[in-house]
Amino acid sequence: MKVELLAITPNSEKLIEQAGRTCYQSHEHSKAGSERNFIQKIIRNGHHSVLEHASATFRIKGGTRSFTHQLVRHRLCAFSQQSQRYVNEANFDYMVPKSIAGNSDASKLFAEFMLNSKNVYHKLQELGIKNEDARYVLPNAVQSEIVISANFRELRHIFSIRCHKKAQLEIRQCALSMLRIMKQQAPAVFDDFVIDEENMTACTPFDK
Amino acid sequence: MKVELLAITPNSEKLIEQAGRTCYQSHEHSKAGSERNFIQKIIRNGHHSVLEHASATFRIKGGTRSFTHQLVRHRLCAFSQQSQRYVNEANFDYMVPKSIAGNSDASKLFAEFMLNSKNVYHKLQELGIKNEDARYVLPNAVQSEIVISANFRELRHIFSIRCHKKAQLEIRQCALSMLRIMKQQAPAVFDDFVIDEENMTACTPFDK
Amino acid sequence: MKVELLAITPNSEKLIEQAGRTCYQSHEHSKAGSERNFIQKIIRNGHHSVLEHASATFRIKGGTRSFTHQLVRHRLCAFSQQSQRYVNEANFDYMVPKSIAGNSDASKLFAEFMLNSKNVYHKLQELGIKNEDARYVLPNAVQSEIVISANFRELRHIFSIRCHKKAQLEIRQCALSMLRIMKQQAPAVFDDFVIDEENMTACTPFDK
Amino acid sequence: MKVELLAITPNSEKLIEQAGRTCYQSHEHSKAGSERNFIQKIIRNGHHSVLEHASATFRIKGGTRSFTHQLVRHRLCAFSQQSQRYVNEANFDYMVPKSIAGNSDASKLFAEFMLNSKNVYHKLQELGIKNEDARYVLPNAVQSEIVISANFRELRHIFSIRCHKKAQLEIRQCALSMLRIMKQQAPAVFDDFVIDEENMTACTPFDK
Repeated sequence: MKVELLAITPNSEKLIEQAGRTCYQSHEHSKAGSERNFIQKIIRNGHHSVLEHASATFRIKGGTRSFTHQLVRHRLCAFSQQSQRYVNEANFDYMVPKSIAGNSDASKLFAEFMLNSKNVYHKLQELGIKNEDARYVLPNAVQSEIVISANFRELRHIFSIRCHKKAQLEIRQCALSMLRIMKQQAPAVFDDFVIDEENMTACTPFDK
Repeated sequence: MKVELLAITPNSEKLIEQAGRTCYQSHEHSKAGSERNFIQKIIRNGHHSVLEHASATFRIKGGTRSFTHQLVRHRLCAFSQQSQRYVNEANFDYMVPKSIAGNSDASKLFAEFMLNSKNVYHKLQELGIKNEDARYVLPNAVQSEIVISANFRELRHIFSIRCHKKAQLEIRQCALSMLRIMKQQAPAVFDDFVIDEENMTACTPFDK
Repeated sequence: MKVELLAITPNSEKLIEQAGRTCYQSHEHSKAGSERNFIQKIIRNGHHSVLEHASATFRIKGGTRSFTHQLVRHRLCAFSQQSQRYVNEANFDYMVPKSIAGNSDASKLFAEFMLNSKNVYHKLQELGIKNEDARYVLPNAVQSEIVISANFRELRHIFSIRCHKKAQLEIRQCALSMLRIMKQQAPAVFDDFVIDEENMTACTPFDK
Repeated sequence: MKVELLAITPNSEKLIEQAGRTCYQSHEHSKAGSERNFIQKIIRNGHHSVLEHASATFRIKGGTRSFTHQLVRHRLCAFSQQSQRYVNEANFDYMVPKSIAGNSDASKLFAEFMLNSKNVYHKLQELGIKNEDARYVLPNAVQSEIVISANFRELRHIFSIRCHKKAQLEIRQCALSMLRIMKQQAPAVFDDFVIDEENMTACTPFDK
């Protein structure tokens, strides 16, 4: 899976401070670097709505339809996804789950099935079936490109749910990739998420 | 596909009138039957937010994962869906698209593939692969039960988008089934949707 | 302030169980009274989305415009509010804050000002100024009727924010009134909120 | 009223094209300048969700509490507003509605009332009443700074509702100021809104 940052609100941390200081009319306390303390304070105080003024957009390639079906359940985001109605999936790519890749029998079975699926899809097309109906044979493992936009408050929510050890591996990997990018782009907002690289999880002191 | 009404706001039309008359403090004009004219007026005037006070909940059985992936893109609803992580799908049901059912070659191909998919899923289970990973071989045609709740404004929006001839047949059938129920339950709110049974579409005079 | 329940999803607790069991396909475990344990478990596990299938609608009379301006900031609700554009406010009612009612000098000053405000509003009307412009002299203390609908998950969120001691007294009283009603109507969903009558607050063990 | 753009998604039109082409996997058609046609096509086809990937943030100074109470009813936005609980309003600024400014009797009455309101607020403070309670005497005309963020789809919705002749003058002026900025920043997205400077309204061919 490849997660790429397409766009982000410029000077997002300063913008959050500028918006947040509106509530208290404390603009005179805004100085170079003051956004860091301001943001940590509003997070600590649960005044999270201020984080909504900044947003980021990611392109996610190589995620499966199982993963996208989970991802689009986050309702406070914008999504644009590769359509299986309009796109010819005759040469689809697919993902092999780790547990299957690590088992040679399962792995062989899985590869054969994907090939079979591709053949059946192609034959249905030859029989005059439209893509939108042929796609009913496509398995969950088929990859589907998706673009997601979310504000920083919602990203924090997604990370706290989807970087948790109970989340499925694929969406966890995606959330961790987004988190790594956000920690670089807006450290004051995302620094309290600590990544456990060994277990592929992340959480804040609050989540524990 | 089977669409069943699980719950609906009691006396929904009167409730909408009671809420709407709050804006104008015209409670004295509320009489037996006055809700019909009131509701038709607010719909005509585009004052649709008042329709949000009433909601309905449906259970949808027999819809496929292609369909549910489209359905859950409606973000102003509540959803609870059969989980392919937690549910053993070894005996999954599947849906045959109309265009495939009407083509004997395609139909045979499709049935064989579904059987194969079931076998591979089962073999992966026997090889010790967890359901949450074995499910990557499940095709879009696999059925998935889902419960949806939405307020009446959002239902009108869903009907205007999903009863349109451009919508895919499966989600159109679901939207039409919900619409038929809503026309009985709250005629003042949904009567302007005219169903074209032959073409399996519906629209309001405004949509045309 | 008077808070009245206008509508609520029938058999809301059973509905939540019916929806939630869809995820696990565990319908066979639904029995008379089983909803209580089921709901407590999903709340404990943070699976709160299932609570969204049930909703309630309240009419709130006697709240001020200060209060309604706070209330409508909850974005996952439906609102219908008495309009100061369309309603003649020449005989408005107003609320006296407790701290002012308890101070005789402040109390007198406040009452005189409200009378003055009413006079000025009336004189502006006589000078031919429309209600929508005359209303700019109306003070925050003016009462404004409002109807709110929200699902049970959002109600829990509102209670945890607005029954907190940091919330302003007026919105706290409103939230507590709604909470008392919900504890009767859907005890399995709201029982973990403990009301402190002396301090006029409420919280769950989790909020502490 | 002063409307200032604080932030906007960089290269917003290209971003919208990049996201939208994901659906059709037509990335190869993206060229310098191709975003204009692409965006006009998706607007024409009602594929508005793609516009949600870009957002803008505005600071609005000089709007009244009447105006902000209307503005925050748009639920798909982020808001941060000057708090009358935390900010001392002893020297508040206020707005004079046009119809009152143009009537010398009304104008005098209005100015006296505002002075009176300021005096009463101040006296309440001196009597030991907290700002959060003293504020109940503040009239609707009191100005309140607010920061709003919204995606381009929601901005189009706000403009179509709030630039309409039925909208109150103050919110119409605000919406028109935001629209003028957006027409410069993202012409392909907002060019179909035609401003009628004489009547201070705006609409698209579709709205008429």
